[in-house]
Amino acid sequence: MKKNLLVAQSGGPTAVINGSLSGLIREAMCHPEVIGAVYGAVNGIEGILQDRIIRVDDQFASAADFELLCHTPSSALGSCRFKMPSPESGAAEYARLLEIFRKYEIGFFAYIGGNDSMDTANKIANYCYEHGEEVRVVGVPKTIDNDLPVTDHCPGFGSAAKYIATTLMEISADSAVYPLKSVTVVEIMGRNAGWLTAASSLSRALGGSYGPQLIYLPEAAFDVDCFLDDVRGALEKEDSVVIAVSEGVRLADGSYVAESMQSGQVDAFGHKYLAGVGKYLERLIADRIGCKVRSIELSVLQRAASHLQSGTDLAEAIRTGETAVQFLIAGKTRVMVALRRISNEPYRIGYEAVPLEAVANVEHKIPREWINEAGNGVREELVRYLAPLIQGETAVPMKDGVPVHFAFDKTPIEG
Amino acid sequence: MKKNLLVAQSGGPTAVINGSLSGLIREAMCHPEVIGAVYGAVNGIEGILQDRIIRVDDQFASAADFELLCHTPSSALGSCRFKMPSPESGAAEYARLLEIFRKYEIGFFAYIGGNDSMDTANKIANYCYEHGEEVRVVGVPKTIDNDLPVTDHCPGFGSAAKYIATTLMEISADSAVYPLKSVTVVEIMGRNAGWLTAASSLSRALGGSYGPQLIYLPEAAFDVDCFLDDVRGALEKEDSVVIAVSEGVRLADGSYVAESMQSGQVDAFGHKYLAGVGKYLERLIADRIGCKVRSIELSVLQRAASHLQSGTDLAEAIRTGETAVQFLIAGKTRVMVALRRISNEPYRIGYEAVPLEAVANVEHKIPREWINEAGNGVREELVRYLAPLIQGETAVPMKDGVPVHFAFDKTPIEG
Repeated sequence: MKKNLLVAQSGGPTAVINGSLSGLIREAMCHPEVIGAVYGAVNGIEGILQDRIIRVDDQFASAADFELLCHTPSSALGSCRFKMPSPESGAAEYARLLEIFRKYEIGFFAYIGGNDSMDTANKIANYCYEHGEEVRVVGVPKTIDNDLPVTDHCPGFGSAAKYIATTLMEISADSAVYPLKSVTVVEIMGRNAGWLTAASSLSRALGGSYGPQLIYLPEAAFDVDCFLDDVRGALEKEDSVVIAVSEGVRLADGSYVAESMQSGQVDAFGHKYLAGVGKYLERLIADRIGCKVRSIELSVLQRAASHLQSGTDLAEAIRTGETAVQFLIAGKTRVMVALRRISNEPYRIGYEAVPLEAVANVEHKIPREWINEAGNGVREELVRYLAPLIQGETAVPMKDGVPVHFAFDKTPIEG
Repeated sequence: MKKNLLVAQSGGPTAVINGSLSGLIREAMCHPEVIGAVYGAVNGIEGILQDRIIRVDDQFASAADFELLCHTPSSALGSCRFKMPSPESGAAEYARLLEIFRKYEIGFFAYIGGNDSMDTANKIANYCYEHGEEVRVVGVPKTIDNDLPVTDHCPGFGSAAKYIATTLMEISADSAVYPLKSVTVVEIMGRNAGWLTAASSLSRALGGSYGPQLIYLPEAAFDVDCFLDDVRGALEKEDSVVIAVSEGVRLADGSYVAESMQSGQVDAFGHKYLAGVGKYLERLIADRIGCKVRSIELSVLQRAASHLQSGTDLAEAIRTGETAVQFLIAGKTRVMVALRRISNEPYRIGYEAVPLEAVANVEHKIPREWINEAGNGVREELVRYLAPLIQGETAVPMKDGVPVHFAFDKTPIEG
């Protein structure tokens, strides 16, 4: 008997999260003997619980629309930060979920998301499995942070890494333009894992003359005095010093640098206020070294810049979505699609099903031995791991000088 | 008798400033009957006064190198902020300048820069002219701010405008991802002129559904209460509101919003500190409206993002450089290359020589009547003016997943 497929997106967007969605919908439509309609939940699990379900497979006029969706930033179905409670404390939520699954005759559920979303997918999968509910569940990984375990890397990371590597080259070239001593601090996302910040190394590490001279990651303890020594040393060698720093750098005691160092700061309205670590280090350098200094926060640009996707990343994101459907059809459930690096030169990737249980709530960080001893730069192993992920460009559809994006009609079937 | 050509760059970089340099050097090399060697000064006028002169015409192995230079961000010859004093107070500087001109047998001098640089070019041109020195001087306009008078627009502006229009679409899509009320404030460069901030309108104005709902420019007086009313009104219509604000917005009394509103703010080190207007408005909204709010400063990314040049802008930048040489050869001096819009549909541009005297120190701002009455959005005239400038893309040379940039050997002929 045919069943329908429901797909939803969760957590922070990536530049290729809709590539996975596009691949998944398109592949599902290729199996009409098993999969009936393809539905999307608006705003993830929240949308399921609120019956905000839309039909997605009838919203594509042609193959070009699938292509457009691949280059559309943000989560086309909307997202949420809702974490499914345990079945014991969330009986009402689970009952409601099953009600919606039955109402739309859902036999296949795909959740595109990161760490927390895989935990939610795992809980739902286990609940269905243990209650004999015939709903197969697959997790589709996405995160710019690259902090999911088991999988070699996460779709979404490569594009953010390419944006960061390129942007840091441009910032570095720009910063060197005047003949004076200057420091530019660039704050990059990654609360617990430094993968994104490490990607800033890619131009210089591959032989280029631009990019940060100093790189600080959460995986190596940060020391304020060592940092100031590093900066003074770098300024002796070059006029213009660029520093890449992860938002999540911590002191040896485990506390975040940004939070532990500025308890007294107030904003223009007299409220206590925490500046980011980039701004904090800018003020620190101004105070202790006194040269020209500026800080730049890449903010959401690094996860939304679909105009600069990695070709490798987009292709893998699409393939991950397609593979999710193939796993569901093959009878798999309670699994996530994982990428396995078969070889690095030439770069080859395989796709496999790994238990959601093994992924949920585990964080994948940079091995300390891939960071240099001083904790202010990356080692060759890290560069070798990162480099293949940013290769290749994509042809972004443009109109009137700006990219063209795809948008779903999100009017729910039943409001 | 053949004379040599000297070129220099000054002021803040743009994404295509090296396009003008590339076009200029290449064109100069096409006229060996008139122009001997082509020299570059490192770091603008400062480099001339310090005899940091390099030969540039022998640093290109092939046409591909000229192409690379066109896609290289920042000022490839380095820049300076040095403003030439008047001949009365700067006799030593003028004498030194003539000494260097004579030493390298310079008969042609091209200065690529913005407002202040055209003032410097004008002073040098007048000095040479009045002292019978046979040096012809041409100004080559560049500025992301688009604040030069006489010329229809400035090379460099179109690429920054394209980056801003694209990035604001991406930020707007990203901001709408969660089902909650939120405001995102994006601070854009432009201390006195709002052209760049106005470019954020381009997607929405051309029929797109992404981009800022509210736009604030220095040319319309800013009122804090009206602003809060605007934001509340926009939040009633849509969950996610994006605001584009120029760094230079001012109150009705002419004072900058960012400076007049936060006299008491101190940083983590107890020093007085001025946050940008974006951060100030973020805190204002948090205090008075209380919804989720974030601010983003585009910072130098908007002038350095040569990975997203406007095809129209790059072509015009190159052509402006070529035209400068043609003007010099034709005997023109004390002029700047200006762009004249012959027609808007189809978009056609002519190049003409205008007196440097008419350009130096005059600021070109947005006419108030191109901004809506409420001062929170743009009118159709402004969109029609802006739209052609961001059309077309360029093929950025890539290697190892990141752009390839050109670099001069900057070792001076004599140190």
